[in-house]
Amino acid sequence: MAPGFSDQENGVGSSPKSVHVNNPHLDSMKEDILYHFNLGTASQDLPAMFGDVKFVCVGGSPWRMKAFIQYIAGELGLGDPKAEYPNICAGTDRYSMYKVGPVLSVSHGMGIPSIAIMLHELIKLLYHANCSDVTVVRIGTSGGIGLKPGTVVITKQSVEDTNFQPKFEQVILGKTVVRNTDLDEGLAEELLQCAAELDQFETIIGNTMCTLDFYEGQARLDGAFCSYTEEDKQNYLGKAYSAGVRNIEMESSVFAAMCKLSGLRGAVVCVTLLDRLKGDQLTSSHDILNNFQQRPQVLVGHYIKKQLNAQKS
Amino acid sequence: MAPGFSDQENGVGSSPKSVHVNNPHLDSMKEDILYHFNLGTASQDLPAMFGDVKFVCVGGSPWRMKAFIQYIAGELGLGDPKAEYPNICAGTDRYSMYKVGPVLSVSHGMGIPSIAIMLHELIKLLYHANCSDVTVVRIGTSGGIGLKPGTVVITKQSVEDTNFQPKFEQVILGKTVVRNTDLDEGLAEELLQCAAELDQFETIIGNTMCTLDFYEGQARLDGAFCSYTEEDKQNYLGKAYSAGVRNIEMESSVFAAMCKLSGLRGAVVCVTLLDRLKGDQLTSSHDILNNFQQRPQVLVGHYIKKQLNAQKS
Repeated sequence: MAPGFSDQENGVGSSPKSVHVNNPHLDSMKEDILYHFNLGTASQDLPAMFGDVKFVCVGGSPWRMKAFIQYIAGELGLGDPKAEYPNICAGTDRYSMYKVGPVLSVSHGMGIPSIAIMLHELIKLLYHANCSDVTVVRIGTSGGIGLKPGTVVITKQSVEDTNFQPKFEQVILGKTVVRNTDLDEGLAEELLQCAAELDQFETIIGNTMCTLDFYEGQARLDGAFCSYTEEDKQNYLGKAYSAGVRNIEMESSVFAAMCKLSGLRGAVVCVTLLDRLKGDQLTSSHDILNNFQQRPQVLVGHYIKKQLNAQKS
Repeated sequence: MAPGFSDQENGVGSSPKSVHVNNPHLDSMKEDILYHFNLGTASQDLPAMFGDVKFVCVGGSPWRMKAFIQYIAGELGLGDPKAEYPNICAGTDRYSMYKVGPVLSVSHGMGIPSIAIMLHELIKLLYHANCSDVTVVRIGTSGGIGLKPGTVVITKQSVEDTNFQPKFEQVILGKTVVRNTDLDEGLAEELLQCAAELDQFETIIGNTMCTLDFYEGQARLDGAFCSYTEEDKQNYLGKAYSAGVRNIEMESSVFAAMCKLSGLRGAVVCVTLLDRLKGDQLTSSHDILNNFQQRPQVLVGHYIKKQLNAQKS
């Protein structure tokens, strides 16, 4: 049989919008162990712990996701930004998870497989916790194409690395199923509006190329292996630019596909740490790179604050 | 142009065997920043720090790789197993790295992209440090097929998930290059011999299926999405078993391909945490799973000790 899900199964419509799991087996399980979070339906009261979650921010680095929860606690007036927030996944070293008010912050490691494991368990967590109207934003780092380093890119479409098409290929039972990687257009526009209100750094909407490899897969000349020239690299990145690609990272395609399948509003907001047309290595100082990495946090922090204020008024 | 490397380029032969980088650009770089290790040729004296490395053990979990360096320090009489060993990559949260004597222990996160970034930088590190005769072993966890949980599988061939062929597909400049995933047969046999000498747990040589996904990609019924039945799952895993697959994990294919390209003797030694024919979730107790995870460490520890003793005598 050829598995996969049609657009009709994406569960758009009802209000409030609950989180979908497209798995008939789940409800017959006595217990669901979210192994890589070290959480489970029998060992924790997930609705009590997570039922109020409305915003989930995910990013590769556990340190960054800890910094984000401290930042957002201060921004929302929900806690001291210098306080220690407990790691909810302290029993495992696979992912880190922090929560303050309606905001959950989760690390996902590097690459499609790593974020996909996290997202499977996150979607189940939100489902078991009876969450509704959840927005998920990936706040990450990336390489830019033709952009000043430090520019923030809000992803329009996540495209693959061969023909720059908005699709993600998932192997299921040895067969390839193609999934759509469209992200929520309205959410992207709202985020761009937030960037304009902040007016602190350049922010654009563009396509994001998602690769399985950081070195050869992104045409870098500085990996352990390289069989192409600077000219080959420039030609390839030029073709990507012509297809609307403004930055390259390693998680957006499966993120977009899984958000769509589970009825989550999703956005990808990545800062560009360098311009790949000018180099491959990260030679900027630690302080500059650190400042760049805070930009998606500041932008998404502003968005969350605005949403919560709008609900209050 | 169609990049990739032929078998002739794999750098087999000379003695002592140095670590190969197949990248003509590297030698013209003034500095090489190993970004995800927070190390570099200008900021560290890599030959002084790593020149004596002969064995590199890699695994997904940073905690496990820290435990391994403590264990091996005790086994080799090079340090107190209860001592704190400094994390050489303390300046980043992407990977952890520990060293004692000729043994380096490095974490690689989950999935092909995550281990590939680490391996690119590890191979360059070993090259810059002028290391020779290096053996690299992945000590990991996996799901077994038709094996008693706790059985250790030494990988014969790492095979893909569609036709169970020993190959790894690398996208370079938008084109797919197919690489061989053969591992060192002699090393696998030596490790099996070590397991027989230890006689502490069942160990076999078998094929390992490497997937990009933990849930749908491994025919699990307990992910956020599942569009197939228990029968479909059993059929798929049955086909894999018929092709010689005895366990499933998420890093071995690119590990094997990159070891081969850089002239490193490589082996994959994974314990099976469950029998996938009987279930999908890890329901064993923490203590049992912990015991299982130590088995590849014990096996590889014995192998390293034996090699070092043989050199002394």
